Amino acid sequence: MAKVKKAKKHQPVILITNDDGVSAPGIRALVDSVKHLGKVVVVAPDKPQSGMGHAITIGYPLRLHPVHIFEGIEAWECSGTPVDCVKLAVDKVLHRKPDICLSGINHGANHSINVIYSGTMSAALEASIESIPSIGFSLLDHSLEADFTGAKKYAPILVEQILQKKIDKHLCLNVNVPKIQVELLKGLKVCRQAYAKYEEKFDERKDPSGRDYYWLTGEFVNFDKGKDTDVWALEHNYISVVPIEFDFTNYQLKEKLQQSLTS
Amino acid sequence: MAKVKKAKKHQPVILITNDDGVSAPGIRALVDSVKHLGKVVVVAPDKPQSGMGHAITIGYPLRLHPVHIFEGIEAWECSGTPVDCVKLAVDKVLHRKPDICLSGINHGANHSINVIYSGTMSAALEASIESIPSIGFSLLDHSLEADFTGAKKYAPILVEQILQKKIDKHLCLNVNVPKIQVELLKGLKVCRQAYAKYEEKFDERKDPSGRDYYWLTGEFVNFDKGKDTDVWALEHNYISVVPIEFDFTNYQLKEKLQQSLTS
Repeated sequence: MAKVKKAKKHQPVILITNDDGVSAPGIRALVDSVKHLGKVVVVAPDKPQSGMGHAITIGYPLRLHPVHIFEGIEAWECSGTPVDCVKLAVDKVLHRKPDICLSGINHGANHSINVIYSGTMSAALEASIESIPSIGFSLLDHSLEADFTGAKKYAPILVEQILQKKIDKHLCLNVNVPKIQVELLKGLKVCRQAYAKYEEKFDERKDPSGRDYYWLTGEFVNFDKGKDTDVWALEHNYISVVPIEFDFTNYQLKEKLQQSLTS
Repeated sequence: MAKVKKAKKHQPVILITNDDGVSAPGIRALVDSVKHLGKVVVVAPDKPQSGMGHAITIGYPLRLHPVHIFEGIEAWECSGTPVDCVKLAVDKVLHRKPDICLSGINHGANHSINVIYSGTMSAALEASIESIPSIGFSLLDHSLEADFTGAKKYAPILVEQILQKKIDKHLCLNVNVPKIQVELLKGLKVCRQAYAKYEEKFDERKDPSGRDYYWLTGEFVNFDKGKDTDVWALEHNYISVVPIEFDFTNYQLKEKLQQSLTS
């Protein structure tokens, strides 16, 4: 009995958030797949926050309300961005740092350049700034009816390894799962971020008053032919795992610049 | 006469944006300081967008209106984020890539970890993704009455060098100017991003209905003792220049992870 109590006391605290909102099927899939690994607490946006990047709310106050939508799991919805959710969770919900922060499962790809626009990945990156190891999960399927079977199979495997191995307190993983049947998945592959970007083409329209307005649209173009990238891995049925960092210094250009600006 | 025409034809196109909004004194200071170096076009948010990070607008359409607030300068206000401004400027205003994109001058510091939350720096980073060299300028003074003299002195020096030397098409510089008199400035210093972060402490209040709400507050803490960081440079009266990049891959952890996940 004492042993059980001790084990319970030391079970890891797993903070879960996302950017699709607390009611999205993806976050439910993530909660279901890892809840046996520790004490799960959910703090997620009360509405979709896709494309919010690393935005924080500074001009408005934030709200936090308990929600009872996950059986046996403490969950809160927050009026802010995914990054706000992580900050608020640590200070006002958990009153401590969780052992790991998970974000997702995102409905849609966050590989390559998407990482920079993604609220899902920004929440994970925020956790890593706070010395909380983190993983963001995304499925290459935007549909609300997406099949999360593959992601649900591999998420707990990865979470368990990261919890056990304690690789780095700033570890932040960008994990993307291809949209294929679970039997076809070849497993996890550690990659680098591909150099790919969107070729924007705004859709120009006129409103009923005759005034112009613009919808952001764009075509994803991969310029990177490397076989060590996340795009390559996903195209070849692997789950891509890219460790990402919050030190944005371009060290290569730093050297070049030092010479150039002084010459 | 032909010579003048030729020179005019080849004058660089300089796109200017910010995150404090098109009417902020900082963007006016930037326009004034570099308008002799090329054809300046301003596309900036129609309202403050501080802390918006790399957010893009995907759930709503965008508006773009001409504004006549800079004498002799084409300027537009956009309803979106700083990153939206860059994308829209290229596709719908300039119909080409500018030779350089400048962002700022921000009212407030964007050194160290601030780079990740900053709309000013995200606009610059977006430009660099698009192969447009870019510089984000920030002054360590939040005040609307801030003295931009030092920033106005060094901005054109740096812009001219970057335009001439064509160091890299993806060059993106995070430039911060200390809040001191211009005579005390020691010049430009190429640095790396300091490891510093905010220790959050949400201010908890009750609204007139008795419901809780939270204001984000926090104390900036520098954990980095290096003398090659932007924080160090600014504390020692230098203008910090940090080249930043959009490849977020953590290459060091990539190696470690590869060994760890396969063992």
